[in-house]
Amino acid sequence: MINIFKERKTIEQVEEGNELAPKFDENGLMPVVTTDAKTGDVLMLGYQNEEALKLTIQTGEAHYWSRSRECLWHKGATSGLIQKIIDIRIDDDQDSIWLKVELQGLEASCHVGFKSCFYRSIPTGNIKDEIKLIYKEDEKTFDPKDIYGDAPNPTKL
Amino acid sequence: MINIFKERKTIEQVEEGNELAPKFDENGLMPVVTTDAKTGDVLMLGYQNEEALKLTIQTGEAHYWSRSRECLWHKGATSGLIQKIIDIRIDDDQDSIWLKVELQGLEASCHVGFKSCFYRSIPTGNIKDEIKLIYKEDEKTFDPKDIYGDAPNPTKL
Repeated sequence: MINIFKERKTIEQVEEGNELAPKFDENGLMPVVTTDAKTGDVLMLGYQNEEALKLTIQTGEAHYWSRSRECLWHKGATSGLIQKIIDIRIDDDQDSIWLKVELQGLEASCHVGFKSCFYRSIPTGNIKDEIKLIYKEDEKTFDPKDIYGDAPNPTKL
Repeated sequence: MINIFKERKTIEQVEEGNELAPKFDENGLMPVVTTDAKTGDVLMLGYQNEEALKLTIQTGEAHYWSRSRECLWHKGATSGLIQKIIDIRIDDDQDSIWLKVELQGLEASCHVGFKSCFYRSIPTGNIKDEIKLIYKEDEKTFDPKDIYGDAPNPTKL
């Protein structure tokens, strides 16, 4: 695969230019936030390595690096929950990505069955009392067993 | 400061419960995506350590850990660009945060002077041609010199 990334030379080039000069971290990864183009809601926070970012640019479908499964991850290849790219943004210092996507199929994104991975809210205020998370989605969009079968849960303790 | 975080015991507790049991990475940090409650736009991607998350919950204003300056960072303490918390969300495996905020003052968030840090778009398609980033904000909201003076630029090459 050809190298589409430029060398990082100056802060001005990185922040104020039009060259794509991304910075991956010590593990070769970059955090990626994915939002629903229709609602503006944050769906998930994932990671991309160089190949995942290139494939996302090239195919117009979201690709990530799965840290739990340690492999390239074409979102939806197993579940059908494909994310069609509407816009790819990169931030000022080019070390994180924002994907604005259109959801296909069940219009959900989270392996637990909810539409967004961020289905719970942390109440603000006095932290002397016990904190109870508040559910922001009333019910799951799908049953994970129907989609993923017996595949191992990616959540690590 | 009291410990408001629960021990992570089971996947069910973490994914399906109402206990706050966050997982910080090997550097004690968690990625945080911040969106503008008014427009839904992603403003920035930052990081929080335990203290920054606690202070955000307690004060209702966004706090981060600055990786470049290696210190706790009350966003807006220097610049006036305070982010008032509308909602704090945590994801399924509780290792990332979504802050929905209301911008104060200049209604901007990016140290380069733009409203959002994600002011440039990466075009999709044939990656054999050179990629040129496309500006999505026509002009800067403020002049960084007016706000930050001679403070060192946080961007690292």
